[in-house]
This record gives sequence, C-alpha cells and structure tokens, in this order.
Amino acid sequence: MRDPELVDHTAWVPCDLLERFTTDVFRGVGVPEDEARICADVLITADRRGISSHGVSRLKPIYYDRIVKDRIQKAVTEFEVVRDFKSTALVDGHHGMGMVIAKRCMDMAIAKAREYGTGVVVARNSTHFGIVGYYTLMGTQAGMVSLVSTNARPAIAPTFGVENLLGTNPVVFGFPTDEPFDFTNDYATSIIQRGTVELYAREGRPLPEGVVMDENGTVLTDPGTVLRHLLAGTAALAPIGGVGEETGGYKGYGFATVAELLSCALQQGAFLKALSGFADGKKVPHSLGHFFMAIDAAAFGDVQAVRRRVGEVLRTLRNSRKVPGCTRIYTCGEKEYENSLQRAKTGIPVDASIEAELIAMRDELGLTQYRFPFE
Amino acid sequence: MRDPELVDHTAWVPCDLLERFTTDVFRGVGVPEDEARICADVLITADRRGISSHGVSRLKPIYYDRIVKDRIQKAVTEFEVVRDFKSTALVDGHHGMGMVIAKRCMDMAIAKAREYGTGVVVARNSTHFGIVGYYTLMGTQAGMVSLVSTNARPAIAPTFGVENLLGTNPVVFGFPTDEPFDFTNDYATSIIQRGTVELYAREGRPLPEGVVMDENGTVLTDPGTVLRHLLAGTAALAPIGGVGEETGGYKGYGFATVAELLSCALQQGAFLKALSGFADGKKVPHSLGHFFMAIDAAAFGDVQAVRRRVGEVLRTLRNSRKVPGCTRIYTCGEKEYENSLQRAKTGIPVDASIEAELIAMRDELGLTQYRFPFE
Repeated sequence: MRDPELVDHTAWVPCDLLERFTTDVFRGVGVPEDEARICADVLITADRRGISSHGVSRLKPIYYDRIVKDRIQKAVTEFEVVRDFKSTALVDGHHGMGMVIAKRCMDMAIAKAREYGTGVVVARNSTHFGIVGYYTLMGTQAGMVSLVSTNARPAIAPTFGVENLLGTNPVVFGFPTDEPFDFTNDYATSIIQRGTVELYAREGRPLPEGVVMDENGTVLTDPGTVLRHLLAGTAALAPIGGVGEETGGYKGYGFATVAELLSCALQQGAFLKALSGFADGKKVPHSLGHFFMAIDAAAFGDVQAVRRRVGEVLRTLRNSRKVPGCTRIYTCGEKEYENSLQRAKTGIPVDASIEAELIAMRDELGLTQYRFPFE
Repeated sequence: MRDPELVDHTAWVPCDLLERFTTDVFRGVGVPEDEARICADVLITADRRGISSHGVSRLKPIYYDRIVKDRIQKAVTEFEVVRDFKSTALVDGHHGMGMVIAKRCMDMAIAKAREYGTGVVVARNSTHFGIVGYYTLMGTQAGMVSLVSTNARPAIAPTFGVENLLGTNPVVFGFPTDEPFDFTNDYATSIIQRGTVELYAREGRPLPEGVVMDENGTVLTDPGTVLRHLLAGTAALAPIGGVGEETGGYKGYGFATVAELLSCALQQGAFLKALSGFADGKKVPHSLGHFFMAIDAAAFGDVQAVRRRVGEVLRTLRNSRKVPGCTRIYTCGEKEYENSLQRAKTGIPVDASIEAELIAMRDELGLTQYRFPFE
C-alpha cells in the first residue's frame, strides 16, 4: 500500500531524539516520568512502524491540547480496578492517559493468562491509547495469542445508513511467531482513513467508489470535497466491503460493531455518538472503552511449537504464487516491521505542520535543550 | 441481501419433519442417537435461519457420503481432551462428527468461563461443524460474550496471490442482548461464496468486479465461468475488501488469516492446503481446527445491564438515518432471526437437487416411514 507519510515530509528526525522530546513534553504537562516514558514509547513505536497517523502527529492535538487547553484528559492517571474475578477484570481509567491505562490493562491480562490460561481486562472512561498493535505485541512477546479492541470517535456509517456512528474500530489479534516479527492485523474497520484521503488529494486522483459518503448517502470521490466534509463532520466512512451489501459492506460493518460492543458492553461504558468529545457544544472527555485479551500458548503445550506453526502458515502464504506483476505477498505486521528497521536508520519523517507543532510545544514548555534537524 | 435459497426451490418442507428425518439419517449411518440429535439440530438451525448453504443441502455430500462412501469421517465421535489447564483445554476430535465435537467444546468453554470468568477450548482433527452462529449463540444464551472460529477447505487467495489457500474462514463473535435475538456476525471472510455465484448465474447478471479470480490473477465476472472454475478448483475468492489493497482487501485477508491461526496454532493442527480433503489423489479427512471462547458477563457485573447495553448500541444503529431509498438498517443476527420466525410457519425451502438427495438417503437407509411433500 502507498504510505501517506512518505510524501511531502520535509525532515527526518532521529527516533531517539523524538522519543526523548515526546517524553519531556508528556512530563512537561504533568504526566509522571515513568508514565510519560510509556506514552512516548507508544507514540514513537507507531512512527517507527510507519503508522504516522498515530504517532508524534497526534502529540499536540490529541494529548497536549486535551490536557493543557481543553482540560478533558488527566495527566496523572487514576487506574481503578472496579472488579477483579480470577481471569477477568474491569478497570475505570477516569479520563487519564490512554496508553498508561492500556499498558496496565494488557499487563494484567497477560498476568491472568499466565495464572489461568486466559485473561480478559476491559476498561472504561479511557482516552486514545495510540496504536492497538503496541498492546497485541506485548501479548505475543509474552508467548500469548492476543486480542485488543477499542472504540473511537464516530466515523463509520452502518450499512444502509448515512450517520457516522461507529469509530474506525479495530479488532486486532496478535499471534507469536518464530520470525523476527509477530503477526498482528492492526488496522481500522473502515476502508480508508483521513490520511489516505489527503494522499489522494496531493496526487490529484479520485478516491475509489464507495469508500465515503455525505449526509445524503451520496458517494463522494473528489478528495478535496471529502476532506471538507470530514472536517465538518458531514461525511461518513464506509466499512471494509464498501457501501451497501453487494461487495460485503455488512461484513465490515459487523466487525466495526463487534469492536464497539467489546469496548462498551462488559464495561458498561459510553458508546457511539457519546464518544464524539462534544456535549452541548462543549468539549468533554471521550470516555473510550477498550478490550484486552491474552491466551497463554504455554497452557496448550510447547510455546516454541505454537510459534513455529504460526510461522509455517505465514510463510506458506507469503511463498504462494503471485498475481502477475506482483512481486510480494505480505502477512500482517511485516510491512510495519520493515518500516521499523528502516526508520531506525533514517529517523522518522515529519512534515511541515508537525514541525510547527513540535516547536510550539517546546517553546511553551521551555524545553530549550531541544533543537530539531528542520530548524 | 438477496437470499439465494428463495429462488428456484420447488418445495417447502416442515421444519419438524426435516429435523426428524435428518436425525434418523445420522442414526442410520451409525451416529449415536443423542449425538444424531445434535447434528440434526445444527443443520436444521442453519435452514431455519436462512443459511441454506449450511443446512440439509449438506447432509448427503458433506456428512452421509463422507461417512458411508468415502470413509473419511467417523460416525461415533471419540472426543479426547488432550490437555486441560484451568480456563483452557485442547481437544482432539479424531475425525468424528464436527457438530458433536464443537458443541462439547463450546459447553466446556462456557463451563470454564462460569468458573474462571473466561474459557478457551480449541479442537483439532475435527470435521465440518455447520454454522458458526450455532455455537456463538450457545454462549450468548448463557449470558456470555463468545468468539468462535474455524478453518475450512482452501478458497481465498491472499492479497497479491492467486492460490486458493485460506478457507472462507469465519471470525464470529456473539453478544447477549435484551432483545428476542442475540448479536452474532456469522459470515465468511470472503466477499461471496458459491451459492451467491449460482444466484447471479440464474439471474444472468455479471458478478461485481474483484470478487473472484482465476489462476492467473484475472478477475472473473461471468458467473457461469466462475462456477466452472470453482468446481475445477482453478478459481480463488477475494477476501472482504476485494482484490489488491486499494479497497482494503488486505484487511479481509488479515481476518481470514486470523481464523486460520486461531484454528491451527494452539492446537498444533493442520492448515491451508492440508485441509483440502485430498492427499496423493485420494480422499482423506479434512482435519479441521476450531476455536471456542466464552467470557462470562456475570464476572463483570450485572448480566442484564450488559444485555441492555448491547441492545442500546444495536437499536441506536438500527434507528439511525437511512440512505435515501433504504428502509431498514440491520444488525448482525437480525435477518437470520426473522427467517427463523418465518420458516417456523412456512417450512424450509428445498430445491430439486436436494429433494433427490433426501429420497436417495431415505431409500438407501430404508427409512420407509418418511414421505416428503414434494413426492
């Protein structure tokens, strides 16, 4: 797939520099040091893996501004275990740092799986926790099969509907392998997200049919028009499978609904429009819910044998016959791993708008020890 | 969605008659009576729910013939618990009856969830277990969130590949509701299956672009050509999202891979091409794997509150604004529920080829007490 962040960037910033800076920004707004490290690690891991939509590009709008300016997110996380029963737990995040809440929940799920074979921890009143793959890979690195999901602000319309009700809700599994990278299907249940639309706009190409519609159900393909509608909240994304039922749109809609239910039902949390971050015209906490599951491969036998079996399946897929003109078949997590190898050398691409945000936060927090390569 | 089985049938057979007959066919080939009842219940439940591709249409080719003629499936199921650790278990089905294996596995997962909060049971060396929704709904009826998956004979090509490697692998969740029907996203991870192609053929309409390809990666749209290729094993289905990456085909491919891994990794089972039912030109057991998970809502609080929350989400989706010209928004399991209400009155539609199979089995087994409405 085309990689939106490889276009129009103006600078490559070393990973370590960006991670130290991000940690200091989180510390600067009041996040305790060890938790600031977690938050920065999640964001920079996204950038390293090439998922720049969930990386440092979100530091100012989704975290810094919400803590400092909007005051709808708490820098110091109150992690309350509301209920704990053997292999399960229910956590209330009290609008703290999503990454801190999520990492602690996944740690709990893994510890429970170690003791009971499986563990499920759900969270409510959380905030954006970054890439889902960070947490599924915590599971695989511990030799576990994992499943992590979250809801998100409204974006996807149900099949035959026009309202953006469901988030781009991921349903992400992780499987440990015998390869240098584990399997994780870390993606949205919409066909595209805003970053992809921006890429089409820059390239002057129309979007494929049936990936986004306006409030009247009219399918939109002009990327400029789509971006205006998305900003105004008057467009809805189609689920995987597209608009209507003919090409399986109801299947993507079903998976998006699964994520919504995994993220609100057991936790008695908020859902759909209530996750918009607005109420009565004012900004309010997003009250996201998450779901974390771990299944210990060791409970079923030899962990190495499980890893090998997963690897065999993935290698068989990759080594199978290609469509003429296609040179590679990928498996989930492979491109992200290759990105991480590359970016360890090249650094992380940062475009002009993000550069301005980094400089603004640095100056506001007085982090005078930082100078960026793009200055 | 159009309903393939509402076209070209020649008779409606009362549900009870068809279920008694199906039970007696299973008994007639050696399945113990209580297990024959389970097998028949699973098949007829599929027909009641309108999923005729997995109902009595499979009785002869997928069960009767494989037991009696091909001798690759055992009528008496040896259900071996290979490993049992707190909330998890690994089962070997020894090529017995898939429905019996699956029901017992799901019962175990539910019992484990009742004790520990969550339960995961995996099976290997199983056979076709019918509709996945039968088992996810066992979970929801017990007040549990459920996840059931299986692999299947090769059908889907990976993104950028042409070989049919992955089954139409379902990844099916269940959520208990406060409504007359529970939520379950019981569908394949391919866009279409053979039954849908047959419908297009009867209607003389071309298939949508990008749902099936031949061995050279050429997208096929003529339904007659597609059926010939599918019969010859020289076509591959596209995953949800379609061929290539532009409309998210890699996401459907990812979900199909998840099902394959859930169904073979922890159980150290067979996978991909090894599930074809053929080896060295001879018919061999399919050696399917399954995954069953249950999460007890009671472990997280009040089950009724969880049911209500799920219902609220689903009602919000259904009651949202429709695309002009569309009168209803559905949620997963709703159409199947409505089918079951209707078919309790009308009976089950059976087309001419199935009628012939039913008569053949009756006569071979000497079940002279049965006469069908179509005779």
